[in-house]
Amino acid sequence: MTAKRKIRVGMIGYKFMGKAHSHAYRDLPFYFDPEAEPVMQAIAGRDEEGVRSAAEKMGWASYETDWRRLIERDDIDLIDICTPNNAHVEIAIAAAEAGKHILCEKPLAMNVEQASRMLDAVNKAGVTNMICHNYRFVPAIRYVKQLIDDGRLGTIYHMRGTYLQDWIMDPNFPLVWRLRKEVCGSGTHGDLMAHSIDLARYLVGEFTEVNGMMHTFIKERPLGEMSGGLNAQVQSDRTGEVDVDDAVAFLARFEGGALGVFEASRFGKGNRNGNRFEINGSKGSVRWDMENMNNLEVYLEEDEKGLQGFRTINCTEEVHPYTGNYWPAGHIIGYEHTFINLLHEMMSGIAQNKSTTPNFEDGYRNQLVLEAVERSSESRQWVQIPSKGEM
Amino acid sequence: MTAKRKIRVGMIGYKFMGKAHSHAYRDLPFYFDPEAEPVMQAIAGRDEEGVRSAAEKMGWASYETDWRRLIERDDIDLIDICTPNNAHVEIAIAAAEAGKHILCEKPLAMNVEQASRMLDAVNKAGVTNMICHNYRFVPAIRYVKQLIDDGRLGTIYHMRGTYLQDWIMDPNFPLVWRLRKEVCGSGTHGDLMAHSIDLARYLVGEFTEVNGMMHTFIKERPLGEMSGGLNAQVQSDRTGEVDVDDAVAFLARFEGGALGVFEASRFGKGNRNGNRFEINGSKGSVRWDMENMNNLEVYLEEDEKGLQGFRTINCTEEVHPYTGNYWPAGHIIGYEHTFINLLHEMMSGIAQNKSTTPNFEDGYRNQLVLEAVERSSESRQWVQIPSKGEM
Amino acid sequence: MTAKRKIRVGMIGYKFMGKAHSHAYRDLPFYFDPEAEPVMQAIAGRDEEGVRSAAEKMGWASYETDWRRLIERDDIDLIDICTPNNAHVEIAIAAAEAGKHILCEKPLAMNVEQASRMLDAVNKAGVTNMICHNYRFVPAIRYVKQLIDDGRLGTIYHMRGTYLQDWIMDPNFPLVWRLRKEVCGSGTHGDLMAHSIDLARYLVGEFTEVNGMMHTFIKERPLGEMSGGLNAQVQSDRTGEVDVDDAVAFLARFEGGALGVFEASRFGKGNRNGNRFEINGSKGSVRWDMENMNNLEVYLEEDEKGLQGFRTINCTEEVHPYTGNYWPAGHIIGYEHTFINLLHEMMSGIAQNKSTTPNFEDGYRNQLVLEAVERSSESRQWVQIPSKGEM
Amino acid sequence: MTAKRKIRVGMIGYKFMGKAHSHAYRDLPFYFDPEAEPVMQAIAGRDEEGVRSAAEKMGWASYETDWRRLIERDDIDLIDICTPNNAHVEIAIAAAEAGKHILCEKPLAMNVEQASRMLDAVNKAGVTNMICHNYRFVPAIRYVKQLIDDGRLGTIYHMRGTYLQDWIMDPNFPLVWRLRKEVCGSGTHGDLMAHSIDLARYLVGEFTEVNGMMHTFIKERPLGEMSGGLNAQVQSDRTGEVDVDDAVAFLARFEGGALGVFEASRFGKGNRNGNRFEINGSKGSVRWDMENMNNLEVYLEEDEKGLQGFRTINCTEEVHPYTGNYWPAGHIIGYEHTFINLLHEMMSGIAQNKSTTPNFEDGYRNQLVLEAVERSSESRQWVQIPSKGEM
Repeated sequence: MTAKRKIRVGMIGYKFMGKAHSHAYRDLPFYFDPEAEPVMQAIAGRDEEGVRSAAEKMGWASYETDWRRLIERDDIDLIDICTPNNAHVEIAIAAAEAGKHILCEKPLAMNVEQASRMLDAVNKAGVTNMICHNYRFVPAIRYVKQLIDDGRLGTIYHMRGTYLQDWIMDPNFPLVWRLRKEVCGSGTHGDLMAHSIDLARYLVGEFTEVNGMMHTFIKERPLGEMSGGLNAQVQSDRTGEVDVDDAVAFLARFEGGALGVFEASRFGKGNRNGNRFEINGSKGSVRWDMENMNNLEVYLEEDEKGLQGFRTINCTEEVHPYTGNYWPAGHIIGYEHTFINLLHEMMSGIAQNKSTTPNFEDGYRNQLVLEAVERSSESRQWVQIPSKGEM
Repeated sequence: MTAKRKIRVGMIGYKFMGKAHSHAYRDLPFYFDPEAEPVMQAIAGRDEEGVRSAAEKMGWASYETDWRRLIERDDIDLIDICTPNNAHVEIAIAAAEAGKHILCEKPLAMNVEQASRMLDAVNKAGVTNMICHNYRFVPAIRYVKQLIDDGRLGTIYHMRGTYLQDWIMDPNFPLVWRLRKEVCGSGTHGDLMAHSIDLARYLVGEFTEVNGMMHTFIKERPLGEMSGGLNAQVQSDRTGEVDVDDAVAFLARFEGGALGVFEASRFGKGNRNGNRFEINGSKGSVRWDMENMNNLEVYLEEDEKGLQGFRTINCTEEVHPYTGNYWPAGHIIGYEHTFINLLHEMMSGIAQNKSTTPNFEDGYRNQLVLEAVERSSESRQWVQIPSKGEM
Repeated sequence: MTAKRKIRVGMIGYKFMGKAHSHAYRDLPFYFDPEAEPVMQAIAGRDEEGVRSAAEKMGWASYETDWRRLIERDDIDLIDICTPNNAHVEIAIAAAEAGKHILCEKPLAMNVEQASRMLDAVNKAGVTNMICHNYRFVPAIRYVKQLIDDGRLGTIYHMRGTYLQDWIMDPNFPLVWRLRKEVCGSGTHGDLMAHSIDLARYLVGEFTEVNGMMHTFIKERPLGEMSGGLNAQVQSDRTGEVDVDDAVAFLARFEGGALGVFEASRFGKGNRNGNRFEINGSKGSVRWDMENMNNLEVYLEEDEKGLQGFRTINCTEEVHPYTGNYWPAGHIIGYEHTFINLLHEMMSGIAQNKSTTPNFEDGYRNQLVLEAVERSSESRQWVQIPSKGEM
Repeated sequence: MTAKRKIRVGMIGYKFMGKAHSHAYRDLPFYFDPEAEPVMQAIAGRDEEGVRSAAEKMGWASYETDWRRLIERDDIDLIDICTPNNAHVEIAIAAAEAGKHILCEKPLAMNVEQASRMLDAVNKAGVTNMICHNYRFVPAIRYVKQLIDDGRLGTIYHMRGTYLQDWIMDPNFPLVWRLRKEVCGSGTHGDLMAHSIDLARYLVGEFTEVNGMMHTFIKERPLGEMSGGLNAQVQSDRTGEVDVDDAVAFLARFEGGALGVFEASRFGKGNRNGNRFEINGSKGSVRWDMENMNNLEVYLEEDEKGLQGFRTINCTEEVHPYTGNYWPAGHIIGYEHTFINLLHEMMSGIAQNKSTTPNFEDGYRNQLVLEAVERSSESRQWVQIPSKGEM
């Protein structure tokens, strides 16, 4: 047995996504036999106390308080960007120029212009790059991709995607970073809709035109913990403006002729993480919901009359993607496994010197759609998405 | 077109079941083209005001205050028995002796001895007879029968049936007739479990032995409206003894080698009419629940790997039993249609001079199982059910 | 007891909707004690053999082969229009001018101009008028209306409605009347989307603006039974153009500030009659699906932490609208009962000399939305809906 | 910060359960801040090649080929027994005598006599001991326990538990170790039913009497990989006798007066790991199914009329047990997390010098019920379970 190539990782940011990525690096070699092996070399964050404690807790060998230092280090092969969106562009370009492989959280950037420069940078540098659209790595969704590629659903006519959360519905919830345009670029749109757009591109294909609306229900919020998540606290009796969308919806057409209807909102009371879709083809349909992510509903026209109906498949069989590496059928996996599966592909990509999808090009094309929806919401017109050939 | 034979019906009792039967007589010719046509000739009940009002409301041409009078009438072809259980035996035997066809509510009788005499009477008289186990006539269940008969589920290994209600859980709910042994013979057992037993006999086959337990959680109740249903009122501060079972469960073996587990209770909080079962065979399984009675879940081993799962079939397609007579697929039917379907079979039976199942023999064999469970509960032993050959 | 007022009905058309209406007239007095009593006086249809047979089968006392004759008859109080859409305007105006009460199938007309004239006619004549949006009369939906009116869901932020069928997906399915613009005005839009629009207006309120897309997937179909439904046969090797939409989707804003996303398609494989919606308010959410129409899912923020979740309510309790007239809790009703409930309201309306909703004004306002979506699909722009004050 | 106490673990066996335990030791410190910290010191297995490779793959620092050697080692504090059932007794007693803490897989032993000796040994040694009934540590189930303890379900009347799998239904599946009495003691009974019994004892209380049946559907099987799991291969054309049960069911009574109905089978086609139960109390009910383990259905009588129904709670909120340590609400966890949660309790137990439940006494009492069911199946009689006071 030859010693396996080690990939020394430097991660920037250590909150929700940093935790998810860290866990996946730890767990990957337990479940898989990846072509290259990640080494949890260092993390970076501005607050020394916070970053040291996170490093210790999550198992990173060292830490930096300036991400630039991480990129300078020779003992880092892969930069993993888990920061808020506004920092992606500078870090990614610096990392690419330093010849580091890059895994970047979604959305890729604040806008198409940034995304384009990031894509150019990784292409020029020739480094392996991925964007962390982890839902592609749910076994059930991976399996839908197989069904569609194998023609089992026939010609795709419809996709309807809905991504609903409800954590900011209280008007007294503070103005956290996810509600600030300068930090995020957009609100629900880049946070949730970006995932639905990625699933649509993955499963149905490229968008040709979109027509959307964006809306902010609560336009002023108390100031408080900017960096906070679900439990962020109000810390002031002053308020600030919410300048991002609370909800977004758009109509779409796809290259293959399918119609799309997409909606995302943080005002979907009762939906904690309701990432759902249904796809209808000429020969079959599928339905999926993240809150029961192991289950997939599949309808096949080929079933005999009388026995036609949506099957609820617990996608934990050996034949389903990735699940053979975990537990016997019927023993479900969870949210965190999507990151493990993604990293497994990233390690293969690095070992084989290629950029497994979804990569920065996917992130860039996702950004094209995000921005087209924003523009259509402003202009109240349909907006075209350039095809790959037209770029 | 020849004039269709008219079947003049005389119904005894006009409460919950009387309403369900009356509606079905009215509706049958609308949806079906039955071989014989029911005519709503007369109903009988002891309270003149009540029976007159019921006749008018439900569309019966006349009424009697003594059921014997109904049997004497020459213009009655079919006696429909919707009384409490303790009146079945006398009415049925009198009706048979008068040469009337008979539809009898379940359970057939208070005990095996009565049931045996009733069966003898109809056999001797040669009249068409049925027992009103209406759940056999749910399209989804009729379809399960087809699947099993066609071998689609293979050898049957297991049936588990559960029938849960919760309407008497309040200890202050009064001692209605359904809680009195002298009126009913048993409580939950004859009321709910009789249905589960009938479905088991219909779908899996004959029982060979049973071993059960019966229990009464609330042993004293206030006196009140004896004749009442769900909304019966307490009318006294005196109490009486509940001498029937609140809950019953039993283990069973079937002639074909299958194992059965059955449970019925009126103390199943939150289950209004939770009549459910699952059957597992060597090649497939089915699951059904009355509260969503149009749906059937079917698992077939023959499905390819990866696509195996329980299908939720909305049994409203033309290919499903009876449903072509109602509405297009996806437009569901309800509880009352089970009685219409049953009457359709009864009318065919009369026209063809035969006794479509479930008939008095089914009622009798059901009673054998009911009584065996009761005896096993008392003796705390397994009790054998005689096979048809042994009777 | 005073004799109850009789309402003598003349119905035009006797196919799918004619059957549903006929059954409801028959069944209404059995379940309800309506303020006025319908009498099934006559039906009209062009084909004498067909209409005579239908009258006999469904219980109508007489028939006509010209609908004008029906309107002339003095022994008809109520005209029930179950014809294809292109005949509605002429019949309704003639009936109004003859002083008949009117029940009209949906959509009210082929376009706003017709609908406007029909509304003027009934208003001028002062007759009771209703449009047959039967889904408003599903107990679960009626109950949602109560919850919203009582403020239980708080401010409404979102409604997403989806109505999917799949009966015309086979490209060899013939060009039936529902696929011809001259007969229907539109395809899926007027047939299915009109229902979703009605539910939205009923539950959320008036639309202010819409932005839609309409699409025809199969543009040529073989000629065949024009009058057919799901089982229509091809009768020619010639084809004709499909000039109506197979699918439609639109974004919307409501007067109260809510956002709407609506989609209807006859290309939703596996969905036989998938009429579904979810509404999210500041205090709660509801979900409903016609294929399990008795069930309602309700989420209430007021539930204590840990116990928050969507409840599946089987809306068959006495406290739910209409269901006390049918069966005990847990014994479900079906599609046909929506028509019975609607007729119950219609009879009250006539007895009280008013027009219970949904009436022709609702039909007219529905048509405004339908037409606005069509125009937006053509112009690729948002289209405003005039408010009631602006009309 | 004081250095945390290290608990050096020696694990015996490294197949399915060994993998689940190993992963949990690795993951525990990432998610929790346990009172003592496990160190993956050594594993033992007979096959040197296998055990070395497993140690390397799963992250154990060393290995032994004789479990006795592991117990002799001074650098081991905790012995984790993941072997087949027939080895438990000898290992556990030796470990206790060596003063090691013990975690033992279920069922505790082959029979009550062994279990009794094991319990005596740990009690005498005063070591912390647990049995690995991991389903107690599903957040949803932990939450049910809270609801019951808080009286939210009222008096418990019923529990029905069903545990169905289908992996040995093919008659050509070989005679693996789980089908051999000398290795397992029993079949489905000790493997699956032991879990249902534990959940019943945890949630409802102690059993007083049971009455069961056990059955073997396939009595001869081809010889093959004895040590195999789901994918075990046939390796011979000779067959051997299956001397354990394929299916088991029993009726039960609990100390608190509740009735129990339990069934477990490996012949439940379509059920991969269908571990399910429903509990009905005087004030509420719960339903749970392992295949969607994050969801819990709860019915509460206190809900207002009209709004009563089973709520589907995604038990991933901060308020639910353990889940605050993982991900935000709506981001589900899986099977493996049950072991992490259990180890968290084990580490607390060791740190606090006590035996957190379920411990060897729970294993012993579980064995009493298992054996009582076996005896009742043979004697065809009810069998009493001694109460704690009677022991």
